Amino acid sequence: MDTQQMQNLVDAVVSSLFVELEASGRHVHVTKEQALALFGHPLTEKRPLSQPGQYLANERVTVVGPKGELANVAVLGPERKAGQVEVSLTDARILGVEAPVRLSGDVKHSPGILLRGEKGCTPLNEGVIVAKRHIHLTPQDAEKFRVKDKQSVKLQTYTSRPVIFEDVVVRISPDFASFVHLDYDEANSCGFRKGDLGRILP
Amino acid sequence: MDTQQMQNLVDAVVSSLFVELEASGRHVHVTKEQALALFGHPLTEKRPLSQPGQYLANERVTVVGPKGELANVAVLGPERKAGQVEVSLTDARILGVEAPVRLSGDVKHSPGILLRGEKGCTPLNEGVIVAKRHIHLTPQDAEKFRVKDKQSVKLQTYTSRPVIFEDVVVRISPDFASFVHLDYDEANSCGFRKGDLGRILP
Repeated sequence: MDTQQMQNLVDAVVSSLFVELEASGRHVHVTKEQALALFGHPLTEKRPLSQPGQYLANERVTVVGPKGELANVAVLGPERKAGQVEVSLTDARILGVEAPVRLSGDVKHSPGILLRGEKGCTPLNEGVIVAKRHIHLTPQDAEKFRVKDKQSVKLQTYTSRPVIFEDVVVRISPDFASFVHLDYDEANSCGFRKGDLGRILP
Repeated sequence: MDTQQMQNLVDAVVSSLFVELEASGRHVHVTKEQALALFGHPLTEKRPLSQPGQYLANERVTVVGPKGELANVAVLGPERKAGQVEVSLTDARILGVEAPVRLSGDVKHSPGILLRGEKGCTPLNEGVIVAKRHIHLTPQDAEKFRVKDKQSVKLQTYTSRPVIFEDVVVRISPDFASFVHLDYDEANSCGFRKGDLGRILP
């Protein structure tokens, strides 16, 4: 086996056991109408994210809650059908809202909030959630790990403060890249550094 | 068995399996000299903490780092032989210091910082750490759980976002009350609420 073949084998073994971890900072999704109200124009792309088609926008907002506000919050594109604010429990305390732990998109009966952009404000009647930790998997990787869509699994982190996260939800789509998404409370609790890996426990 | 006997039995079973969790917020320990410099007098007790003899002081400080500061930080008494600042990784980023994850008291070569009180300031040459998660146990409870002092164990949380924390250090002393101490990153990552329990895994 030459060096390249050896490297390919190592890569294959690693990717058959591990999924890369990512920490999702607080961020906001907006509708086209909300983007216009906040910025006077649709979202513009600053750089792509790990999930294909998703991007970090150049535009930023201030999230205004009953107790406090968070300035300079990232907005992710493309625009969605409903506005949504994803924060950590730490952030939720600063804002002064009781945000439920939910998967992205599941915002029914979650607290409302005010968004402020450089051109104007827009209220959300609901939409503030703490993102439930989850694993994006391609169908190929899901087969490799023998897991199904919406399955809840345990995930062991290979990090400086190792943790096993229970109840991590698997999401499978051919549109995904395989990554574990943690919020910053979770990332800090396990001492995450960029490039760290996780393993789905049987 | 009457109701009281039943309750006693339940309590005995629960306490033979579980340890109560506590979240430790950011806090500061100071020496007598530092208390005088910061407040003009020794620390005064506001209320006792779960660990016998330890208390929350009426006095508060601002912790001033190279990048940012944390205002209104709790000071714990009684005074110690060395000043120390215990923060979360989230806090350490705000302050702009690279705080190591250490057990309380183990501050060698950790970053320094400035403390500001209502009467004056005092620098710490070292002492900023992220408290390593740990379990205080009485010798009786340690025997029950079959663990030794300084042993590293896995701890399962019975919380809304269940987690198994690996590498949790056991500390045993007749002066302790039995409690698991997590920092706020860890407490938020597992959805901790006051009264929640943890279990030391075999």
